[in-house]
Amino acid sequence: MSELDQLYLDDLDVGQRFTSGSYVMEAARIKEFAAEFDPQPFHLEEAAAEVSIFKGLAASGWHTAAVAMRLLVNGGLPFANGIVGLGGEIAWPKPTRPGDTLHVESEIVEITPSRSKPQQGIVTVRSTMLNQSAEPVYLLTAKLLVLRRPM
Amino acid sequence: MSELDQLYLDDLDVGQRFTSGSYVMEAARIKEFAAEFDPQPFHLEEAAAEVSIFKGLAASGWHTAAVAMRLLVNGGLPFANGIVGLGGEIAWPKPTRPGDTLHVESEIVEITPSRSKPQQGIVTVRSTMLNQSAEPVYLLTAKLLVLRRPM
Repeated sequence: MSELDQLYLDDLDVGQRFTSGSYVMEAARIKEFAAEFDPQPFHLEEAAAEVSIFKGLAASGWHTAAVAMRLLVNGGLPFANGIVGLGGEIAWPKPTRPGDTLHVESEIVEITPSRSKPQQGIVTVRSTMLNQSAEPVYLLTAKLLVLRRPM
Repeated sequence: MSELDQLYLDDLDVGQRFTSGSYVMEAARIKEFAAEFDPQPFHLEEAAAEVSIFKGLAASGWHTAAVAMRLLVNGGLPFANGIVGLGGEIAWPKPTRPGDTLHVESEIVEITPSRSKPQQGIVTVRSTMLNQSAEPVYLLTAKLLVLRRPM
């Protein structure tokens, strides 16, 4: 994506939509991520996962969240100053599985210019990660710090 | 932690508190995580980070969130069926930095037994990750699926 496509606060409107590229979850990476950050049996090993509440190997929700961020940063949300989140709401309506092909669709739902800092604002973005069957697997509504175009 | 310390829904009360072990953020891992999941200059390289909004290298918020999960899974929240999150709210009031020593303090804020599934309930847990100066760097209020003690 060229610099011309990078968006500032001035360029954004409520209702504007963005679609990311895609990412394939791999079993080996699911297990490695879990071993480091979320070492629970249903994220680590197929046999244990089969008899768990997930009924099969499932990625850590935090792995899914991290992959969503990768997709947003790599063109899924082309903000000129990057993607700087203050916080938000998350949900995992379904697990992500080995072999899933994931992408993220985002929509701007609110734009609040800062009163005290005229060069910036808070933009609320609702992102939905979908699998290859168009099932939502991860929802993120994030408040992002976005800068105005430099004078 | 022995199996005797593992808690079921029956063992939990609103106001109950838990404290995790600690974890030191390292610059090399901050950069590696960012290269894979959040490749933005302020997470990747000191010089670029110095002139960014973060004024120095900062971990990806998703790296911070993943480390919090590690601390919760490794004894910070000793639920017998593991830590299975449905979703929640997150915030990053301050960045985490190389060398920060982090731990998580959690409190049970709500317990809602399931009406349709008597063997489980939803427990809302408010977790705060603090750095070595007792500054909150990450807040997570999560809805977790917790099972009753088997008969």
